[in-house]
Amino acid sequence: MEVGIIGLGKMGLNLALNLKDQGYQVKGLDLSVHAQKTAQEAGITLYQTLADLTNSFSGRRILWLMLPAGTVTEGVLEELWTLVSAKDIVIEGGNSNYKDSIRRAAWFKEKEVHYFDCGTSGGVSGARKDACLMIGGNEIAFLEVESLFADVAVLGGYLYAGESGSGHFLKMVHNGIEYGMMQAIGEGFQLIEQSAYDFDLASVAEVWNHGSVIRSWLMEIAAAQFNESPKLEEYRGVVAASGEARWTVETALEMNVAVPTIAMSLFMRNLSQEEDSFSAKVVSALRNGFGGHEIVAKE
Amino acid sequence: MEVGIIGLGKMGLNLALNLKDQGYQVKGLDLSVHAQKTAQEAGITLYQTLADLTNSFSGRRILWLMLPAGTVTEGVLEELWTLVSAKDIVIEGGNSNYKDSIRRAAWFKEKEVHYFDCGTSGGVSGARKDACLMIGGNEIAFLEVESLFADVAVLGGYLYAGESGSGHFLKMVHNGIEYGMMQAIGEGFQLIEQSAYDFDLASVAEVWNHGSVIRSWLMEIAAAQFNESPKLEEYRGVVAASGEARWTVETALEMNVAVPTIAMSLFMRNLSQEEDSFSAKVVSALRNGFGGHEIVAKE
Repeated sequence: MEVGIIGLGKMGLNLALNLKDQGYQVKGLDLSVHAQKTAQEAGITLYQTLADLTNSFSGRRILWLMLPAGTVTEGVLEELWTLVSAKDIVIEGGNSNYKDSIRRAAWFKEKEVHYFDCGTSGGVSGARKDACLMIGGNEIAFLEVESLFADVAVLGGYLYAGESGSGHFLKMVHNGIEYGMMQAIGEGFQLIEQSAYDFDLASVAEVWNHGSVIRSWLMEIAAAQFNESPKLEEYRGVVAASGEARWTVETALEMNVAVPTIAMSLFMRNLSQEEDSFSAKVVSALRNGFGGHEIVAKE
Repeated sequence: MEVGIIGLGKMGLNLALNLKDQGYQVKGLDLSVHAQKTAQEAGITLYQTLADLTNSFSGRRILWLMLPAGTVTEGVLEELWTLVSAKDIVIEGGNSNYKDSIRRAAWFKEKEVHYFDCGTSGGVSGARKDACLMIGGNEIAFLEVESLFADVAVLGGYLYAGESGSGHFLKMVHNGIEYGMMQAIGEGFQLIEQSAYDFDLASVAEVWNHGSVIRSWLMEIAAAQFNESPKLEEYRGVVAASGEARWTVETALEMNVAVPTIAMSLFMRNLSQEEDSFSAKVVSALRNGFGGHEIVAKE
């Protein structure tokens, strides 16, 4: 079966190699020269334009996008829309907002193209051979290409989630939970690291992975990282936040559901990126104003 | 090797059976007639008083307490202190505050008794055969009885954590992290359950246990519970909070460390136990006061 992978970054390239291992005829496309070079060295057949790629298929096209969410994904989909035909399959495996996925699926439906939003978890190693996939789209079309998802995913690691958008909705919530779990783990290890005891953080994470209630893949990653770097001394405590936890909180606001720990874990990442805190300046100024408390002045 | 288990509740009884399976000569004690009956039926030799139990040992005493933290544990330890002698081993496996453990270890040291605070995770099934143990106390004494902990724990599931109190300190933080992880999972599933999609919660939890970043023992438990009860309809959303997350937050306050998601997960449990919210009444009254907004009146 021919499958085109559009976007050969860390996730896309590993997905391409995963499919190649499973016997698929994989065709790749990426605009970055660096990504092209890496993919070529890994044995992926490359195409230079979306037109070249879509023209190369002998039958039904299966096109799997693994691109940064937002304008990049949107732009490629706009061009792709002009190149695909009825019964083709478009799988959008990036971290898109589920509302975009609903809109795009309706748009591709005009051309009778089956559009799947596919939430992808498991990181780079998952994409390589053990992905976890949450798939939204038409159920009958899904059954026609189910084997593709089954081949890419770890055993038991794919779910037909429901109508369009449901795959990315689940991925969004998954990432919200992930943020909360990671923040709780981070807070716990800060207490351990700053306590009066001389704990070995790697040993703590490792024992917690053997029989404890909080054993988890994230704790396994923590153990591996602390084994590499016992106090994470080469890190600064700055964490990027991708869109999904924000969308989780926005969705919760729309639904009037309280998600305080997920929201707080997002805010903590935002805070981690501040060079200086204006809210803290205001609090300091107010405190100085009513109590004459000394301020910490700018250097 | 003779081991006395003091407290034959769910954790203690399973620990006793675990030790029995490993070839230890297990001696049990519990004041509850119900616990005595269950333990006797399970083949545990019972003693009626702490004096009977301590007198029954032919050599060095090993006494493992699995009692409710606080006054019960304290009372038993006070009596036990009068009955033990130099080189005896006392292992306190309950969920005690680490500061109590430091105090108690110093107290037993007066009699040259080795006192270990042992944080125990893994729930009832863990106690039965795959415990995760975090042990604080004298290191040389620990090495003398290390095989006991190794036999009870799952492979890789015990850690000599450091000086007295360190075992219960780790267990405290473990539970703080557990609260945060559980609350994030809870918030995520509320979004999924209340979304416009018709998700099957058990299937979602199961796919997340296969390859996703948030795969974990807690998510496995979620899958099992949703399989039993797809919408948890027989539950009310009321969650008890044991002491450890509170101590985690108290310790964070003492250390001036911010643990907002752990604190919030504790507060969410406290909120879940309120029949009605006085803070919400105050906010409602203020809103009514300045804007004439209608109040939700008591029925």
